[in-house]
Amino acid sequence: MRSSIDHYLRERVALIEAELAQIVAESDSPAARLFDAMRYSLLAGGKRLRPILALAACEAVGGRIEAAMGFACAIEMIHTYSMIHDDLPCMDNDDLRRGRPTNHKVYGEAIATLAGDALLTDAFEVATRCTAQLNPAPVNPTIVLQNLRELAQAAGSAGMVAGQVIDVLGEGKPAGLEQLKYLHSRKTGALFVAAVRSGARLGGANQPQLDLLTDYARALGLAFQVVDDLLDVESSTEQMGKRTHKDEARGKATYPAILGVERSRELARQLERQALAALVAFDQRAEPLRDLANFAVERNA
Amino acid sequence: MRSSIDHYLRERVALIEAELAQIVAESDSPAARLFDAMRYSLLAGGKRLRPILALAACEAVGGRIEAAMGFACAIEMIHTYSMIHDDLPCMDNDDLRRGRPTNHKVYGEAIATLAGDALLTDAFEVATRCTAQLNPAPVNPTIVLQNLRELAQAAGSAGMVAGQVIDVLGEGKPAGLEQLKYLHSRKTGALFVAAVRSGARLGGANQPQLDLLTDYARALGLAFQVVDDLLDVESSTEQMGKRTHKDEARGKATYPAILGVERSRELARQLERQALAALVAFDQRAEPLRDLANFAVERNA
Repeated sequence: MRSSIDHYLRERVALIEAELAQIVAESDSPAARLFDAMRYSLLAGGKRLRPILALAACEAVGGRIEAAMGFACAIEMIHTYSMIHDDLPCMDNDDLRRGRPTNHKVYGEAIATLAGDALLTDAFEVATRCTAQLNPAPVNPTIVLQNLRELAQAAGSAGMVAGQVIDVLGEGKPAGLEQLKYLHSRKTGALFVAAVRSGARLGGANQPQLDLLTDYARALGLAFQVVDDLLDVESSTEQMGKRTHKDEARGKATYPAILGVERSRELARQLERQALAALVAFDQRAEPLRDLANFAVERNA
Repeated sequence: MRSSIDHYLRERVALIEAELAQIVAESDSPAARLFDAMRYSLLAGGKRLRPILALAACEAVGGRIEAAMGFACAIEMIHTYSMIHDDLPCMDNDDLRRGRPTNHKVYGEAIATLAGDALLTDAFEVATRCTAQLNPAPVNPTIVLQNLRELAQAAGSAGMVAGQVIDVLGEGKPAGLEQLKYLHSRKTGALFVAAVRSGARLGGANQPQLDLLTDYARALGLAFQVVDDLLDVESSTEQMGKRTHKDEARGKATYPAILGVERSRELARQLERQALAALVAFDQRAEPLRDLANFAVERNA
């Protein structure tokens, strides 16, 4: 199984990166440095898990991945903007991301802030393209609008930004398991859920399918975060391409800090089973989603 | 005329601010500080010229303003985010805005950055509401999608952010008139054009009307910026509620610096005439748009 998912992931990553490279093209405009900064972070590699999930959810309900490509790319652009802003000196002040200097280390704080702003804004333009260029079979615009609204909610003041605010304000303060779940459902979970739901809608999902895939995405998103916390404790900077052991140094609440390493690992496996259970009614077209749940928990980087 | 436009503006400002206050409500969530920071800047007053233009363009073609309210508010939220980020220490490093300390002076850089991110993201959620709550008569979703795409283009890497990048990179460098026009068409003009076009579309504009209103908005946006440059030279901090004479101190290119004060004033009047000329074919329902062109040029704050 491991080698087949590896092959699948490589193929999907290549597809998505080709699309992203087209979306933010090199430019000779007076603002060329902006586009350089956007490309620097957007094309820096990474697992591309969120867009891959959007495409896989689309396929799981019988859709063609082209229908979900616009939203998949938009979600990766939003994820990238959030990392650029999180790394800023006024936030986490990180120097290293995906094995390279962070955006503001290369382009300066002003351009890094603006590159994040532009990726976030452009993402909404890319998401509207579902009805046109990127998609040979235009989708019902009402579905596109629903997806857009959910994407903005997932990324905005009720979602990802709220999570980051709680993270920033909470540094050094003790937190319980419920608070941690609240934080991560916003900071990471919301975008996973938006990816899966929008992909599924664009693939033609009916309401029961959408509900089940939402359960899947919630469990997967939380599992992903628990494993992230575990990797921060157990891995080296070389392995992860970013500074590790930093949660502890900053007194951030994490699953291993609250539950211990063994029980955190158990929780991740339990969430994986929960994600798989939500897929029981789906046929073999949901196999990639199943493999992805396994990958999110078993990964070592 | 002056007193009738004053009355009109006051009424419209009240309407828009009531809507904005509802959109970003006070909150007792763990991220309450984020909502405080968003409200601090969003409800700090200001001319509300962009949303007023959106509503007036909607009316000019016979639409009801309720149809354009969602987009009008979204555009003001995007304008507010851009000011919060522009004021950051890594950008213009301003302490004063609308007579009050800037957002980061009150809430710190991290929360100010995130408040801007949230206003930008939430704006796209608010814009999708055209089809629902804010609008008693649902609009064709294809029109909403067109507007959303244009709004994202106006605010993103090809529009407002590009303008800010050129502004940041250009400090202290001499610039010609063409470069200045290029900068302002993106930094200020794009959002004016998006406001007018989206309002007009939601009011039911046909293509010739849309083209004429685009000419109007382009001329108005540039006039507004020329007058802004003039006010920076000629006004006091007390009058403007923000630091003045700063363009010169930073060696920024401005219209008065290139053309001199008198010829800049002439240019503003010429652009006003150009804006009015684009409205010749419109009836008395375009009267507010005509008054607004006059207001943008004759204002003293």
